[in-house]
Amino acid sequence: MARTDKMHLGAFMMIPGHHVASWRYEDSNARGVLDYGFYRQVAKTAERGKFDMVFLADGYAVHERFPLALEQTVQVRLEPLTLLSALAADTENIGLAATVSTTYNEPFHVARKFASLDYISGGRSAWNVVTSNTEAEARNFSREKHLLHELRYERAEEFVDVVKQLWDSWEDDALVANKEEAKFADRTKIHRTDHEGKWFSVQGPLNVARPPQGHPVIIQAGASEPGKELAARTAEVIFTAWQTLEEAQTFYSDVKGRLSRYGRRPSDLKIMPGVFPIIGRTEEEAQEKKARFEELIPVEAGVALLSGLISFDLSPYPVDGPLPELPELEQINGGKSRFQLLKSLADREGLSIRKLYQHIAGARGHREILGTPESISDQLQEWFENGAADGFNIMPPYLPGGLEDFVDLVVPELQRRGLFRTKYEGNTLRDNLGLTRPINGYTFKPAESEATTG
Amino acid sequence: MARTDKMHLGAFMMIPGHHVASWRYEDSNARGVLDYGFYRQVAKTAERGKFDMVFLADGYAVHERFPLALEQTVQVRLEPLTLLSALAADTENIGLAATVSTTYNEPFHVARKFASLDYISGGRSAWNVVTSNTEAEARNFSREKHLLHELRYERAEEFVDVVKQLWDSWEDDALVANKEEAKFADRTKIHRTDHEGKWFSVQGPLNVARPPQGHPVIIQAGASEPGKELAARTAEVIFTAWQTLEEAQTFYSDVKGRLSRYGRRPSDLKIMPGVFPIIGRTEEEAQEKKARFEELIPVEAGVALLSGLISFDLSPYPVDGPLPELPELEQINGGKSRFQLLKSLADREGLSIRKLYQHIAGARGHREILGTPESISDQLQEWFENGAADGFNIMPPYLPGGLEDFVDLVVPELQRRGLFRTKYEGNTLRDNLGLTRPINGYTFKPAESEATTG
Ligand SMILES: Cc1cc2nc3c(=O)[nH]c(=O)nc-3n(C[C@H](O)[C@H](O)[C@H](O)COP(=O)(O)O)c2cc1C
Ligand SMILES: Cc1cc2nc3c(=O)[nH]c(=O)nc-3n(C[C@H](O)[C@H](O)[C@H](O)COP(=O)(O)O)c2cc1C
Repeated sequence: MARTDKMHLGAFMMIPGHHVASWRYEDSNARGVLDYGFYRQVAKTAERGKFDMVFLADGYAVHERFPLALEQTVQVRLEPLTLLSALAADTENIGLAATVSTTYNEPFHVARKFASLDYISGGRSAWNVVTSNTEAEARNFSREKHLLHELRYERAEEFVDVVKQLWDSWEDDALVANKEEAKFADRTKIHRTDHEGKWFSVQGPLNVARPPQGHPVIIQAGASEPGKELAARTAEVIFTAWQTLEEAQTFYSDVKGRLSRYGRRPSDLKIMPGVFPIIGRTEEEAQEKKARFEELIPVEAGVALLSGLISFDLSPYPVDGPLPELPELEQINGGKSRFQLLKSLADREGLSIRKLYQHIAGARGHREILGTPESISDQLQEWFENGAADGFNIMPPYLPGGLEDFVDLVVPELQRRGLFRTKYEGNTLRDNLGLTRPINGYTFKPAESEATTG
Repeated sequence: MARTDKMHLGAFMMIPGHHVASWRYEDSNARGVLDYGFYRQVAKTAERGKFDMVFLADGYAVHERFPLALEQTVQVRLEPLTLLSALAADTENIGLAATVSTTYNEPFHVARKFASLDYISGGRSAWNVVTSNTEAEARNFSREKHLLHELRYERAEEFVDVVKQLWDSWEDDALVANKEEAKFADRTKIHRTDHEGKWFSVQGPLNVARPPQGHPVIIQAGASEPGKELAARTAEVIFTAWQTLEEAQTFYSDVKGRLSRYGRRPSDLKIMPGVFPIIGRTEEEAQEKKARFEELIPVEAGVALLSGLISFDLSPYPVDGPLPELPELEQINGGKSRFQLLKSLADREGLSIRKLYQHIAGARGHREILGTPESISDQLQEWFENGAADGFNIMPPYLPGGLEDFVDLVVPELQRRGLFRTKYEGNTLRDNLGLTRPINGYTFKPAESEATTG
């Protein structure tokens, strides 16, 4: 069953690659992680490939629970908003998506920074709303404990609402700049948010006018029950991690089914599962690459990665033995959906700790697709045409080579099949994602609107 | 008495100009304030003029206490760190200084963002440490009242210390990226900050390695007693506002005199008063420009500006009458030094409210210098050679023209006199300011240093 729309592609800029051992790979630039020129190269490659966006994950701590992992994995990264702002100056069309946590930030700053990036980039900014996962982050922000999962999402809901109100606090035509009449702005079109909630009180208005996209695109990446609700109510893109077509389909129809409750259409939210592509000119070449990556994983780094993903310390257990008895899902205060996914994978396939970390060291819980450009395209097409995805978040094993291969070998094949764009549809990220520009809440409801200082 | 060193110049990027009515001026780009291309043009002009840095002021609120002022003044601006990151990509040599308040931010984020900008720009970032001045800002961050002056500075002191520790948390050679030995980092060179203070607990380490400059340059801009102490202990540049040579000399020797107490030399802190230059090819042309600017100030905007600067509402008083009885300095919770300066100016010269706001609508309390390129140069030279300044923060009345005139007419004159550089001395802002690269606190004190996870 062919779709008439095109698939959307994001490039996950984890430097020097999504595989935990990518920095050891012969062709990777191990020091690229703090080298702006390297990010520019990657972003320009993605833009050459007509990707919708580049995406930067983020976190606010070094993970040092496992001493050797601290040595063996890449624990530093540039801050997403500063980095994407620089990339805004060096690119023309590609969307710029940054992760910012609602747990350790303030709505006023977040609204302003994304609005600012939206102006600088001419309407290409996107915010990946996350709630953070680790205790170490709490200790960098004067808190003893990480906020509970439920409270994090409660805070996130309110946070996103306040940010959207701030983006609307200047109507689109509030800025007039009329020199003769000495009227820079029309104050009847500037609105206080006057938000008083459980987590925040924010008077507003924002000190940036309404962004070019109206609202920068909202992305959400949690898949727990409250995560899905947050996405259904507020997000326009959802990043997610599934390994089988069935799981992805279930998630897809679950989330799309929630939209109507909020007066939204299925096309208002694009679902983009992550895929980790290992591309070879032949199947064997791809298999060899995969084996090479597995060899490069230091044991401690593998165990640490897995422990981090399931929020449970596996270092005391024999690496060639099975997973130990794990806590119940309810007791997990990290990422719930990731925990569940890995636990069921280990149970289903009877994997040892080593096999499990080798299995996830690249894709980290996302879908691994391996093969020739044709077979990679087949695998993407299958999910795209069978109600599992509106596009994909591409996570190259190493950079820049892994992305160059995708752009030079896979993208042309997807284009030949009519599955992917051959040129950008519009000037903003919204245009390219096929999302409408949100109506301003204040303009829309004239009865409720009131000038701040009328 | 000639100095052997050169003067330093900063360009204050207040868009579309430092004069409150700049946006109404015929030659100014009123919509430039949200137009990235305009900032790029200004920054490139400053770089062409071999300025040490461009500087962005900042605040976190729209000031709407005076309804008409909300219409008549520019109340929006791009966020400095995103904007300067974009400019990092579009410039090569010029320093990039952003204001960030310690009252409404977290040390971990601030350390990381400036470190990130420092990497992106190759060592050109600077942080202007301010404590914020207004009640409106508090209400955008879930606080009822603005923090008291004394507490703000107490918090600022601790904030800056934590940030510097975070910048040091990775020693300069901690990142090794040795592929064969599977050693990305040397964990004996990564340090927790383990800060536990009155305002913050921050465990660290930062998740960015030590910035290219060691520490981004620290700028301070308060002139009250605690402001001067903060500067003497932690800052490397101080922005300040004085109108007479004597005041500036007193301040200069006061602050320089405080340095030795902290084991610092006078040359470790550069004092850069603000100047507002009105440049004409002739004296008359400059006078005409000034008169034109005064005409363009709407009364309400003038009164609002003045009220804001002294943190006291003047709108109920006759505009052509004298200043009313003002509160005592102790009761002022905004900028204390600015309050004092304006009050004594009004007393000294017997100015009405209108005359006072006309007087300060351009320079806003800074020094106004008016005249031909030669006379402007004389006025700068006088302060530079007489113990009042190490350089100047240039505040063009309107942009880009006001800065272009400075670069094309005044800079060559300063260069002819041997007062200003003809090419950049080095690659980093520190190099150009003649500041040394700070030694890492952990490397320096091996007895106290300890690996996070040793
Ligand atoms: C593609 C993708 C990217 C993510 N990026 C981040 C990130 O950068 N920072 C972060 O803290 N969490 C990130 N997450 C984690 C989620 O935001 C979320 O915290 C996690 O899935 C747990 O949420 P849940 O309990 O609702 O499943 C990401 C998840 C996915 C699928
Ligand atoms: C050149 C200059 C620039 C300043 N920029 C800012 C700014 O961007 N944001 C801010 O809140 N305060 C700014 N200030 C104000 C000072 O940081 C400080 O708050 C003010 O001088 C009052 O401090 P004091 O009470 O120590 O004098 C600036 C001051 C000067 C002299």
